[in-house]
Amino acid sequence: MSKKLTSRADDYSKWYNELVVKADLAENSAVRGCMVIKPYGFAIWEKIQAELDRMFKETGHQNAYFPLFVPKSLFEAEEKNAEGFAKECAIVTHYRLQNDPDRAGKLRVDPEAKLEEELIVRPTSEAIIWNTYKGWIQSYRDLPILVNQWANVVRWEMRTRLFLRTAEFLWQEGHTAHETKSEAIKEAELMNNVYATFVENFMAIPVIKGLKTESERFAGAVETYCIEALMQDGKALQAGTSHFLGQNFAKAFDVKFANKEGTQEYVWATSWGVSTRLMGALIMTHSDDHGLVLPPNLAPNQVVIVPIYKSEEQLEAITSLVNVIVEELRSKGISVKYDDRDTLRPGAKFAQHELQGVPLRIAIGPKDLENGTVELARRDTLTKEVIAIDGLTSKVIGLMSEIQNTLYKKALNFRDEHITEVDDFDTFKEVLGTKGGFISAHWDGTEATETKIKELTKATIRCIPMDNKLESGTCVYSGNPSKQRVLFAKAY
Amino acid sequence: MSKKLTSRADDYSKWYNELVVKADLAENSAVRGCMVIKPYGFAIWEKIQAELDRMFKETGHQNAYFPLFVPKSLFEAEEKNAEGFAKECAIVTHYRLQNDPDRAGKLRVDPEAKLEEELIVRPTSEAIIWNTYKGWIQSYRDLPILVNQWANVVRWEMRTRLFLRTAEFLWQEGHTAHETKSEAIKEAELMNNVYATFVENFMAIPVIKGLKTESERFAGAVETYCIEALMQDGKALQAGTSHFLGQNFAKAFDVKFANKEGTQEYVWATSWGVSTRLMGALIMTHSDDHGLVLPPNLAPNQVVIVPIYKSEEQLEAITSLVNVIVEELRSKGISVKYDDRDTLRPGAKFAQHELQGVPLRIAIGPKDLENGTVELARRDTLTKEVIAIDGLTSKVIGLMSEIQNTLYKKALNFRDEHITEVDDFDTFKEVLGTKGGFISAHWDGTEATETKIKELTKATIRCIPMDNKLESGTCVYSGNPSKQRVLFAKAY
Repeated sequence: MSKKLTSRADDYSKWYNELVVKADLAENSAVRGCMVIKPYGFAIWEKIQAELDRMFKETGHQNAYFPLFVPKSLFEAEEKNAEGFAKECAIVTHYRLQNDPDRAGKLRVDPEAKLEEELIVRPTSEAIIWNTYKGWIQSYRDLPILVNQWANVVRWEMRTRLFLRTAEFLWQEGHTAHETKSEAIKEAELMNNVYATFVENFMAIPVIKGLKTESERFAGAVETYCIEALMQDGKALQAGTSHFLGQNFAKAFDVKFANKEGTQEYVWATSWGVSTRLMGALIMTHSDDHGLVLPPNLAPNQVVIVPIYKSEEQLEAITSLVNVIVEELRSKGISVKYDDRDTLRPGAKFAQHELQGVPLRIAIGPKDLENGTVELARRDTLTKEVIAIDGLTSKVIGLMSEIQNTLYKKALNFRDEHITEVDDFDTFKEVLGTKGGFISAHWDGTEATETKIKELTKATIRCIPMDNKLESGTCVYSGNPSKQRVLFAKAY
Repeated sequence: MSKKLTSRADDYSKWYNELVVKADLAENSAVRGCMVIKPYGFAIWEKIQAELDRMFKETGHQNAYFPLFVPKSLFEAEEKNAEGFAKECAIVTHYRLQNDPDRAGKLRVDPEAKLEEELIVRPTSEAIIWNTYKGWIQSYRDLPILVNQWANVVRWEMRTRLFLRTAEFLWQEGHTAHETKSEAIKEAELMNNVYATFVENFMAIPVIKGLKTESERFAGAVETYCIEALMQDGKALQAGTSHFLGQNFAKAFDVKFANKEGTQEYVWATSWGVSTRLMGALIMTHSDDHGLVLPPNLAPNQVVIVPIYKSEEQLEAITSLVNVIVEELRSKGISVKYDDRDTLRPGAKFAQHELQGVPLRIAIGPKDLENGTVELARRDTLTKEVIAIDGLTSKVIGLMSEIQNTLYKKALNFRDEHITEVDDFDTFKEVLGTKGGFISAHWDGTEATETKIKELTKATIRCIPMDNKLESGTCVYSGNPSKQRVLFAKAY
């Protein structure tokens, strides 16, 4: 199988699809729109999970697990939420197969085994969870509830792409319950900040924190906070959302608590989630025409060591040295792989590790043994240098944080260069069609204008940034008065 | 809500159901047969997951993720497997809801959105995984594949019980592919041994390793290895299984590889799994009439500290001391909770921690402050002692392993006392009806006898132990010649 990638300039979308498959991250499955996450891709997802899980627990959250299925009567209880997801639900209607009388060895759905009430495969879990919280909450003493679950969800999307939009995906969904409105808003903001910190510091992806407009809000939310990232092709990607749900679900499921004065009140809610979509953001932020580029924090192998040898004796000598290096690096918490496969030449190994984004490659040959040196190759800059073995460990440790920082700064520069202030609609269209990226423009605050701009340009309002400064102006499309600029972009 | 449990002697089954709910481990949900795993129960499951995951990786396995759904045509490809699970499958037939024209605000399944091919919610993933492996395997160089996934699965059981038998449950399923029969058998045995080591050392539950008889094998397996544990009520519980699948799935999905000589051969397979059922085994091995008893390895909080005070000043003095203790214990890797809630009295806190199985409770009151002592209470033995604060940390560390060992030995003694050698069928029935436990008896090796014994006594052959000694005898039921004893029991 050729590992040669289409270049990003030639066809960004094709480059992405090829990279995901060739770097062994994921592939399409026999089930329409569902992916198989391969071991290498899953190892990256595990690092994302572990760090997020640590951050959730540090902020007082606990994990739990709720059912995969939502009975239809619960699903439809919160009407806006139900309406938002109704068109993309996988529905279980039967619970048994039987032998097909017409086709030997084949099975068919047993028509006798029809469920009395259909079950929706969860597209999100507010309904089943709030129905459960009803039993957990009587008084203010039971609040807050700060719960998260790691789960699979299903949204029957018509056009799917690996990681970015799949019928089944993996995610975490936090669902919290609070005594007061302000406490719930604080929680929604806190978790959006946790997401921003994680995505920036751990994934080296700069994000803009903001609020969604009404039309882009989560179905059933009063306010949706989000983090928006910018991909290399100038399109935005929503990397995480955190919703202030008001009392919508508490009212739909009749969840009240006795406050300190003994009065019954509806509970206030939030929910927040990130998904395997983050893998798409990772790929489209850092990778290049040679393949994946991984920030050290996310790399299953941060360092790979490749021996260069002709004789068995040379290999043995190199291996003795490598064993010492590996042990020392591991003792410092660096993950290292010694790639001593005898089925591939060094060049082929280099190409594979480049394609799979290993941050640092160390090559050791007979000359290095003589000279007490190794060759270091950085994946992010594609630069090589020969250095002395003495001090290798501290050099590697230093490079790990240097590579992490370099990737972040590079992405930040790119992102900042792609925020363009625009004041008229012709320029808006031109910038969107050529340079791409975020367009910062005045908007009159109406859904009509938002919809019209989307129809004409495919750009949507990605967010109203959290730290937005108020400034009077006129709407880039309608010319009506505006109080602030918002960020438009085409988006994944 | 009363926390008083039914006693085990009065009604073991009721005791179990109450304990699961009152100790905040899990509860039934609005979805028939599906449970909600509550934060405290899930924290124990996370410890199980983390240790198993570590052991899987140590033995060379990687995690991946495969689709939740299995298209019917793939599901039925391996006939025995399909037949084994056909009667308990949740089936997705539609992918959209629409507004119900007859009931405002309600939804109904959109009859236009019927899937061309039904999707089975995975009851186990051999079919979808072997269909995927077909694309991964061309030559012996692609083997072995050593992959595991953590996932939810659905088996539409008619009679369900929290953790023990639920329509949806969480598990891990390993699926490996090998060049040779002997390598696959070795893998199946290895993973059964990993399970045994984990359950004995980590969960403090003694198990018997063995082979299943043909009628008790996994549908589609050539050989099923298992670990069998004994619950306090004398019933056995299958705690894990590891299957040698032969070439059954490779043939069903046409998965061949070119061997070193270039000849095409079918691939050899194993699969192995443990599930949230282990939580049931945990509860029914160690717990008592006061509630849950947790081995320290599995306790979300290994130590809880309760302050006994009347005045705020006393509380402050105790808290200062506790902060030092907590820090020291945590630095040694002990998980500690300081329960300084002001909404509950010490007695109520004691009862709650007892119910929830916290291994060690430390109480500190004003007198302790004066005397430089604390009160230690062990959950497993329900004993208390007052000890000097000096040396508390090393005392606690020592108690952690002592409690872990004590629980294992107690369970082992109970188990060993409940293996009864029996040589005639009247005694067989009597032992089963009174003492319970495993009955070691000769069996003629026929399915007819096995079935008859099951009909007459509800006892099944739990396993043929791995280290079984061959000994001539006559079958306990038929009187026909037998080569070895096997273990019978009633089982969960």
